[in-house]
Amino acid sequence: MGYKHLVQYYETDKMGCTHHSNYIRWMEEARCDFFKKIGYDYMEFEKLGLVSPIVGLNNLKFKKPSTFGDEIDIEVSVKAYNSIVLTAHYEMKKDGVVIFEGDSESCFLTTDGKMVIMGEQKFPGLHHTLKDLLENK
Amino acid sequence: MGYKHLVQYYETDKMGCTHHSNYIRWMEEARCDFFKKIGYDYMEFEKLGLVSPIVGLNNLKFKKPSTFGDEIDIEVSVKAYNSIVLTAHYEMKKDGVVIFEGDSESCFLTTDGKMVIMGEQKFPGLHHTLKDLLENK
Amino acid sequence: MGYKHLVQYYETDKMGCTHHSNYIRWMEEARCDFFKKIGYDYMEFEKLGLVSPIVGLNNLKFKKPSTFGDEIDIEVSVKAYNSIVLTAHYEMKKDGVVIFEGDSESCFLTTDGKMVIMGEQKFPGLHHTLKDLLENK
Amino acid sequence: MGYKHLVQYYETDKMGCTHHSNYIRWMEEARCDFFKKIGYDYMEFEKLGLVSPIVGLNNLKFKKPSTFGDEIDIEVSVKAYNSIVLTAHYEMKKDGVVIFEGDSESCFLTTDGKMVIMGEQKFPGLHHTLKDLLENK
Repeated sequence: MGYKHLVQYYETDKMGCTHHSNYIRWMEEARCDFFKKIGYDYMEFEKLGLVSPIVGLNNLKFKKPSTFGDEIDIEVSVKAYNSIVLTAHYEMKKDGVVIFEGDSESCFLTTDGKMVIMGEQKFPGLHHTLKDLLENK
Repeated sequence: MGYKHLVQYYETDKMGCTHHSNYIRWMEEARCDFFKKIGYDYMEFEKLGLVSPIVGLNNLKFKKPSTFGDEIDIEVSVKAYNSIVLTAHYEMKKDGVVIFEGDSESCFLTTDGKMVIMGEQKFPGLHHTLKDLLENK
Repeated sequence: MGYKHLVQYYETDKMGCTHHSNYIRWMEEARCDFFKKIGYDYMEFEKLGLVSPIVGLNNLKFKKPSTFGDEIDIEVSVKAYNSIVLTAHYEMKKDGVVIFEGDSESCFLTTDGKMVIMGEQKFPGLHHTLKDLLENK
Repeated sequence: MGYKHLVQYYETDKMGCTHHSNYIRWMEEARCDFFKKIGYDYMEFEKLGLVSPIVGLNNLKFKKPSTFGDEIDIEVSVKAYNSIVLTAHYEMKKDGVVIFEGDSESCFLTTDGKMVIMGEQKFPGLHHTLKDLLENK
């Protein structure tokens, strides 16, 4: 379930490399692409009346730099899921070499801001998809 | 009505200078500060049920570079106003020297997206403030 | 010579649409892609010892909004070129409808910051490519 | 050693709140301000021939949202320092309430990319300042 990001000039900083804040944005790009591939693009989320804000970022390791013109391969996997918080793991590679790793924690809210406990009653389709991805990883 | 912006590291690019897209963001910072100073901060806009999107950017001249740590002085003035479109002019200086100039065009919309023609009936307070600023410039 | 940009969540603002500053970044993405397609990717520029900063932005018209998930088609063309300044024109479409238009002015500098007058003596390959694109437009 | 950041419109996203990637940028703003206050502004770093890239981000907790117009108070403290890696802790408050916490890990490199082990021989001034801040915290 790979996602590719081409590093843009405006993503570099005066050290000559990608500014580290952009990796957090690429995590989001890859996460959205991941949700789309499992059948939950943003339209689907909106139809369900769900938003999924980030509540935590952990273990972000900037191992090697990247810069303008580099093609970054990003793999997203389900690391943990407990009906409330989804922990996704990200591995980013350049030319086959891991340059970044990290985890995001996101929860699910209704569009009016109420926390959702997913399950048989609430959003069973997405719930079972995430559980299956966790078990089969 | 000066506004100051301190250039951040994340605003630089691999040429070693501020990436040009950030000047558009500083124009917004200075415009919000300008509105606040004439009595229309964002809360006031929200209470009125107004948003003010950018519809045009013109004559942007990047005259000299800036970089991390530079303090930028930004002056905003009303260049034109016709009850529908506000044309604001921006002059940015570093150490007293002009490094950037440009104009923005913004209109006024109700929060449900309808265009507003300002005047005696609609938002007379903001209307007269902008007219006065145009005449007294 | 189309370029496609998929609007990212982090490019939206609290009005629910793409923040206008991102169109300037997409102009850069499309311009870099344009240079790559005419044989001058960034590596080639670096080999030549050239950088090409933006010196002006003009006639930017934000005609219709875009938002997260939209696919934007961007066409770049050479509007003017006089050996010193390249004026590029950009047209961005969503579902076939023009949502943005604008022009950028960029010049050419050596990596130590000296302005370049392109021609038979200096960078004739790039010079003739840009002249041909202007004449054949 | 507080630092204040006023949330900008361009930092919000379509959920109506600050996009989470901006907290990483504010960590950088506050860290630069912290270094300036202990006598090491960027000019001083450049004179020493040092750069200080981020190598890790940990335990980032997004506790409450913020949005356009909010004033964020940011405290930076030295959490760990071992002559190679500086772990800084950040606490961000809005109206006295903690909305974000997190840690950054940065190392020190010479401008040509060599890792620096700080100590009596290498950059003793900065080394002792960081050690003192760790011991007196």
